[in-house]
Amino acid sequence: MEQSRWLRRTGPARLEYGADYNPEQWPRAVWDDDVRAMRTAGVTIVTLGVFSWALLEPAEGQYDFGWLDDAMDLLHRNGIAVDLATATASPPPWLATGHPEILPVDADGVTLGPGGRQHWRPTSPVFRTHALRLTRALAERYRDHPALVAWHVSNELGCHNVHDYSDDAAAAFRSWLRTRYETLDALNAAWGTAFWSQHISDWAQILPPRRAASFPNPTQQLDFRRFSSDALKEHLRAERSVLREVTPDVPVTTNFMVMGDTRGMNYADWAAEVDFVSNDHYVQPGPGRDELSFSANLTGGLAGGRPWFLMEHSTSAVNWQPVNRAKRPGELARDSLTHVAYGADAVCFFQWRQSAAGAEKYHSGMIPHAGEDSALFRAVTDLGRRLGDLATLAGTPRTPARAAILFDWESWWATEADSHPSSRLRYRQEALDWYTAFLNLGVRVDVLPVAAALDGYALVVAPILHMLPGALATRLTGFVAAGGHLVTTYFSGIVDENDHVWLGGYPGPLRDLLGLRIEEFGPLLDDEAVTLDNGATGTLWTDRIDVTAPDVEVLARYTSGDQAGRPAVTWRRGASYVSTRLGPAGLAPVLGDLLARAGVTSELPPGLRGRVELAVRGGYRFLINRTASPVELDDGTELPGTGVVIVAAR
Amino acid sequence: MEQSRWLRRTGPARLEYGADYNPEQWPRAVWDDDVRAMRTAGVTIVTLGVFSWALLEPAEGQYDFGWLDDAMDLLHRNGIAVDLATATASPPPWLATGHPEILPVDADGVTLGPGGRQHWRPTSPVFRTHALRLTRALAERYRDHPALVAWHVSNELGCHNVHDYSDDAAAAFRSWLRTRYETLDALNAAWGTAFWSQHISDWAQILPPRRAASFPNPTQQLDFRRFSSDALKEHLRAERSVLREVTPDVPVTTNFMVMGDTRGMNYADWAAEVDFVSNDHYVQPGPGRDELSFSANLTGGLAGGRPWFLMEHSTSAVNWQPVNRAKRPGELARDSLTHVAYGADAVCFFQWRQSAAGAEKYHSGMIPHAGEDSALFRAVTDLGRRLGDLATLAGTPRTPARAAILFDWESWWATEADSHPSSRLRYRQEALDWYTAFLNLGVRVDVLPVAAALDGYALVVAPILHMLPGALATRLTGFVAAGGHLVTTYFSGIVDENDHVWLGGYPGPLRDLLGLRIEEFGPLLDDEAVTLDNGATGTLWTDRIDVTAPDVEVLARYTSGDQAGRPAVTWRRGASYVSTRLGPAGLAPVLGDLLARAGVTSELPPGLRGRVELAVRGGYRFLINRTASPVELDDGTELPGTGVVIVAAR
Amino acid sequence: MEQSRWLRRTGPARLEYGADYNPEQWPRAVWDDDVRAMRTAGVTIVTLGVFSWALLEPAEGQYDFGWLDDAMDLLHRNGIAVDLATATASPPPWLATGHPEILPVDADGVTLGPGGRQHWRPTSPVFRTHALRLTRALAERYRDHPALVAWHVSNELGCHNVHDYSDDAAAAFRSWLRTRYETLDALNAAWGTAFWSQHISDWAQILPPRRAASFPNPTQQLDFRRFSSDALKEHLRAERSVLREVTPDVPVTTNFMVMGDTRGMNYADWAAEVDFVSNDHYVQPGPGRDELSFSANLTGGLAGGRPWFLMEHSTSAVNWQPVNRAKRPGELARDSLTHVAYGADAVCFFQWRQSAAGAEKYHSGMIPHAGEDSALFRAVTDLGRRLGDLATLAGTPRTPARAAILFDWESWWATEADSHPSSRLRYRQEALDWYTAFLNLGVRVDVLPVAAALDGYALVVAPILHMLPGALATRLTGFVAAGGHLVTTYFSGIVDENDHVWLGGYPGPLRDLLGLRIEEFGPLLDDEAVTLDNGATGTLWTDRIDVTAPDVEVLARYTSGDQAGRPAVTWRRGASYVSTRLGPAGLAPVLGDLLARAGVTSELPPGLRGRVELAVRGGYRFLINRTASPVELDDGTELPGTGVVIVAAR
Repeated sequence: MEQSRWLRRTGPARLEYGADYNPEQWPRAVWDDDVRAMRTAGVTIVTLGVFSWALLEPAEGQYDFGWLDDAMDLLHRNGIAVDLATATASPPPWLATGHPEILPVDADGVTLGPGGRQHWRPTSPVFRTHALRLTRALAERYRDHPALVAWHVSNELGCHNVHDYSDDAAAAFRSWLRTRYETLDALNAAWGTAFWSQHISDWAQILPPRRAASFPNPTQQLDFRRFSSDALKEHLRAERSVLREVTPDVPVTTNFMVMGDTRGMNYADWAAEVDFVSNDHYVQPGPGRDELSFSANLTGGLAGGRPWFLMEHSTSAVNWQPVNRAKRPGELARDSLTHVAYGADAVCFFQWRQSAAGAEKYHSGMIPHAGEDSALFRAVTDLGRRLGDLATLAGTPRTPARAAILFDWESWWATEADSHPSSRLRYRQEALDWYTAFLNLGVRVDVLPVAAALDGYALVVAPILHMLPGALATRLTGFVAAGGHLVTTYFSGIVDENDHVWLGGYPGPLRDLLGLRIEEFGPLLDDEAVTLDNGATGTLWTDRIDVTAPDVEVLARYTSGDQAGRPAVTWRRGASYVSTRLGPAGLAPVLGDLLARAGVTSELPPGLRGRVELAVRGGYRFLINRTASPVELDDGTELPGTGVVIVAAR
Repeated sequence: MEQSRWLRRTGPARLEYGADYNPEQWPRAVWDDDVRAMRTAGVTIVTLGVFSWALLEPAEGQYDFGWLDDAMDLLHRNGIAVDLATATASPPPWLATGHPEILPVDADGVTLGPGGRQHWRPTSPVFRTHALRLTRALAERYRDHPALVAWHVSNELGCHNVHDYSDDAAAAFRSWLRTRYETLDALNAAWGTAFWSQHISDWAQILPPRRAASFPNPTQQLDFRRFSSDALKEHLRAERSVLREVTPDVPVTTNFMVMGDTRGMNYADWAAEVDFVSNDHYVQPGPGRDELSFSANLTGGLAGGRPWFLMEHSTSAVNWQPVNRAKRPGELARDSLTHVAYGADAVCFFQWRQSAAGAEKYHSGMIPHAGEDSALFRAVTDLGRRLGDLATLAGTPRTPARAAILFDWESWWATEADSHPSSRLRYRQEALDWYTAFLNLGVRVDVLPVAAALDGYALVVAPILHMLPGALATRLTGFVAAGGHLVTTYFSGIVDENDHVWLGGYPGPLRDLLGLRIEEFGPLLDDEAVTLDNGATGTLWTDRIDVTAPDVEVLARYTSGDQAGRPAVTWRRGASYVSTRLGPAGLAPVLGDLLARAGVTSELPPGLRGRVELAVRGGYRFLINRTASPVELDDGTELPGTGVVIVAAR
Repeated sequence: MEQSRWLRRTGPARLEYGADYNPEQWPRAVWDDDVRAMRTAGVTIVTLGVFSWALLEPAEGQYDFGWLDDAMDLLHRNGIAVDLATATASPPPWLATGHPEILPVDADGVTLGPGGRQHWRPTSPVFRTHALRLTRALAERYRDHPALVAWHVSNELGCHNVHDYSDDAAAAFRSWLRTRYETLDALNAAWGTAFWSQHISDWAQILPPRRAASFPNPTQQLDFRRFSSDALKEHLRAERSVLREVTPDVPVTTNFMVMGDTRGMNYADWAAEVDFVSNDHYVQPGPGRDELSFSANLTGGLAGGRPWFLMEHSTSAVNWQPVNRAKRPGELARDSLTHVAYGADAVCFFQWRQSAAGAEKYHSGMIPHAGEDSALFRAVTDLGRRLGDLATLAGTPRTPARAAILFDWESWWATEADSHPSSRLRYRQEALDWYTAFLNLGVRVDVLPVAAALDGYALVVAPILHMLPGALATRLTGFVAAGGHLVTTYFSGIVDENDHVWLGGYPGPLRDLLGLRIEEFGPLLDDEAVTLDNGATGTLWTDRIDVTAPDVEVLARYTSGDQAGRPAVTWRRGASYVSTRLGPAGLAPVLGDLLARAGVTSELPPGLRGRVELAVRGGYRFLINRTASPVELDDGTELPGTGVVIVAAR
């Protein structure tokens, strides 16, 4: 894994601060104002060129780098480093109309037109050729520019184009399947094509799961998700190869979107492909700030403890939600510092100066429409100063927690597939519920990709670990055998890597470990709920559990519904099972009990637990007020509402 | 009507028991386990080959019958009969990709791809050729096989492909219209093309009702529904012709879907095309068990009192609903026996062994994922034994009730067409409301296709009989004239067979019979309700009724809303009209009154009415507990919750 | 502006009364009944031929005018005038199937098929040629027919086809843009193509905003709306040119749809193209009768005080809403007379005789399905008599009110564009809220297109005047400087004509006038509300207002939410700002205050305000009962519920 190189940069370590900078949107005269204001705000780095293809290459093979030279020089003269985009995120009109064969096609066969952004097929050979030529031209132009500290491949790869059903995609999918399965016999077995007359007798018969008369084959769908993530990863690798060839000393990244419902890209699989992890994160009204913390935490997990780059978040409102709330006083700093708490060494925004025109003109920036004379720009400047004071944090790893939540993109995909016992399951929400329950108890927890090493963790929660290949089952069983505590939930351990059900009773490979066997699922209708004898309420799901081992402890039983009298939550020698959705409140007593059994305790004084979130990094404790009200800390000082204090660890 | 031949079978009559059996999903070694377990469960028959085309004909014209020979022989050796599918339900990949012109096209012009099942145009000559060739090959191969007792044409014809808008469909639609109308003048008159500039001057101008700028012509839409049902019926007839030619002694069936919202196929029109009626039925959470009883009852009506075959239902959960509930203890037997009560001579499931892979792996089977050591398989075995004990029922007709509900696919289609006074009408729900009202009063009722003979019925309910051709109006009027009692409802008697409104006041041809005239409809908004002077509440609809005959009795009047003071329910010399949606509770007093006037009484003791459903067949009374609580019968025995007892009729 | 010619008609002035008349739907024998009944009903005019193309031109270039000659003659003999349609609204099947290149294409690329109506591309040269040929043939045929009093171009232009994304549309869009921008530099600047790599380097790269991978460029979308409106206007002009050439003395109109959510056609821009304005209006359950009054009022505003023609409304129910209510007693007359109150000189319906077949058979007519012996036909006849008595009103202008509400199609389009601070804003609803607030206070208000002269108005309300080009800002500022009172609301004054944000703080060009500055918007989530210190509740939106001028009066402050303590409603020297959605009830006190400051008072006695709507036209006062209960007037007479009295103005 090469993912450890930080910026090509001289000078003392610091936390970087900045934004996407799109000077081409503004007259040249504004640029001087920009760099002056950047210095006021404490900006150290900007991302340039993300959407500049049409201006950099105004016609095929004809480049106009003059304006970018000017911007690079201006920034450098002012001490601002550049994370330079390869500018391939959005193809120019001449390419989209001259080569419509680069345009993505949806499952219905509708070609997605130009006019927005990211209208390209990940597998288009034509697009690839054009993108790599521009990448090479940029790399050769700026290889020795002193402002250049990192390469930014494309932008938010897969935000709009991850699932492409074009003929290019079909050909690439076939090729990907040949690599995966080698023989049609293996593919037919994996896909279960003996059913519904789907036996494939020639590779050419394989198509993406375009809209069909009925449910497409589930393993085909799953493989198409895997392939789609891999196809974008291949694009990343292709641009990276050019960049490494020309500028072997400049680290390469691309901005992930570990955030909300974005799920098409298996970032656990991508993380090793970048020299350092970058992430974009935007807050949404419903999931709120725990989701931000969860995402930052998981991004830290993907980065394996190394520095990562918060490439985009917002100073205030965004423009793509149904209703876009402005941030309240304090939220800007709290959001940014929460990312820092989980390992971010750079805090950047989209974008420097809020656009006056175009699709993102209502997306906030570091300088709002109102200009520098604004509360927002003052808050931006305050944050810049604060980050400047935290230079000693730069490069430090997070201090691992004693508990972890496992996160697995393949289980996410598989859990929410069609024709399941319930269409209501939400993989990420269940993980987030557990995360909130940890925060409510004041206990630190790491969010980790499922393949992460579990050494040193006393308690590991694997919510809805639906897809459980044999090797993973063995690894988790070994973790418990070695003294670890494992918690898993409903609909876990159901299928192998081909989405084939483990037979003999659920959850196949975990039956012995848990000492229980489930013959039938008991999903609940939308208006149904069941009660447990610990006072909690379960929704969404139940299981008809039979206990099969004498040493199983029933931690909670159902007292209503079809499973009344049966176990709801069990524990056996460190392996625990939660068979319904309890939500954060219902999980609190269960998790409290499990933490006690695992010997994991809160590092916060009782009065702060729940109200304050604790993160530990580089010898510093981050105390983040989760509420809007002030909290008195144990040293008598007051942590303001929505505030963060960072103190040297005791 | 040939629909009377039962299975080609020797030995004493019995109720058949079994499932779809798809051995090709499993290794050969499992097959021996299968047949052993089938014997344990009392299985007498299985359906083979439904989705086997890709394995039976791995390349065009090349057959591999070896594995099927093996399965047929194995089953026969174990005394299990075979209902052999023609295997044409789902075309193999080589056909779908080699001949994409067989793929259905939706109203938007989107071609539905392979990857699921049933991706074929009912009117494709290419598909037809391939399907008939396979049918012939199978028929010739197994014509004399001793296991073969019936042919199963395709599978759930029209489940996903009933409405195809392809060019093949366009050509066939034109041809169908030429047969129906003979001249363009007749078609123009029927379709009312003088409006909206739609006059057709050449047959070639006719298209399916593809997505248009505005509402397509309603009669074109209606005829397209008729044509679509007929196109599938033609496919059924084509396969049947081959089968009858090769194996004249083997009866032919296909599985209907008299169930829920499935409405594309006019089964009243199809029933005469099969040697015996088969049906698939699945319970859905909302409509519940009365819907099951209604569907079974209607299936019995389609079968005209002859034995019918419950080809598919489920032992427990299915996989295609938003949330798929497992069946509770007792529900499996109760559901199956309710079908038997209404005439089923075979109780079969989809499928024998629950799949480990593929789109239906979460659809329950006779052997669940948990295996034979499971409550479900024990319940399956119990039911097999119970059916074995009921052999004397086999072949017996149901004993007609004294009341009937008429069901008409054409009124269903016409009622729920677009650009109507209300888009909220639900034809089948109104019929089901009446059915539940009968059950609540403990009165038996037959559900009949509208063309059924009404002799012997004292009371006939025709809910929302919207499409009322003159001949039907005459027949119903004659029924009343002969002393019968007829009840009809809002939006009945409005249009003729071409969807032309009967003029002069609604309901045109029933005005004189009912002694009333309606000038305007009074549909209700979603949040509106009206009260009646009998305490009931009406929703969905009202009518502005004027009484035109002196001998009309007003059984209930509106006391609120725009029609306050006007009649809501009327009766005139045996003809009654209900002008609003009352729902089962509101219908109870009205129906009670109407039954009394018709002299129809409950055959249940007062204490059982509503709690117990009664069906009478072959000299046996089925007492079905509609509740989850035990009910004490008049002989002092207890009918358990969700239970069924079958006693010799008194 | 030629829009002043009224009908080519002799005889004394009168209010016209009639309907669309489609005799071709009925046998010839019915026509005689029709004209007899028309005379009974007081019909003076009918619209003929709207959907007759297929019968008038049964094959390309072959005409059959015989039946239309007959109808024209019959009508003329009976003293009924004809507004003759050009019959081009719905192309005949031979044209749609022979020239499928006329069919519209949606944003997904789906071609909209024939089978309904209006399936033609506004920019199709092929369609245009055919339409103009028919127009010429009709004009030449009937130029001297004495029944002909006006031409009716097409029908409801744009009802279904306003946004066409076909290749014809693409070519025409490019041509339109060349005219608007002249250079690509100007277009690139206006569209802000420097962002998202959208720089256009060749006109051929421009496409309609077909479905894209992400938000299409907002100015492209806005220009496509402008172009689409203009493309239909061009069609109107093209037919008009033919008509004026052949019959220079016959006035030309086309029926607008100032009604509900119909927004694609900028009627403020179209009004000058017709010799007199016509409108179609249908009541919908939710918005109710104030919406009717608002639409009639705005139509009067479009007509600039000249007579206009209510071309279509309904006698009772329509057929295209989810649930279609019949009109209650009195509503027919009240609805019609409300249109007359705001300047209609003709009251017409769709259609004369309710269809027995086709898509609109459940749309009410002057003669319902029940026939002439019906309450509805009697009400129609009563209304005809009443209109006959109002002949002195004919040709009179409305008496301007002292207050006005400005309505702007471009702000409507721009306000509800995507990627905005809130997707919940509803431009027309806010205007309607203000209108209802005026009615509740008993104060007359004119609804005017934004370009209307404001001389003589004391108070002008500009709700959500989002798009504020500099010239308009100057004009409004001048209005206040001249002593006028201006009220505007949240999200007003935000962008210029290219949808570029005015920088420096919102609302850019109105900051000085209002004496305030807004740095950030505060849109509210769906379940959020805020309180004001005047007791009102705000929803949907708030603004973070800073007062920048010392003479600003804060009329109401927020007392909850993020803006608690800040101004909610302000006033400065006649310029007022309302920063949240108050709804009619919440607007009442605010508007009352503003009216007092502007010196505008109610012309109704206090007891009638709110219950009665007042309109003044031609020296007559229309008193319209807004309630279902009777109201005692100041002269002691009773105005019945849902009733209208018309009295000579004092």
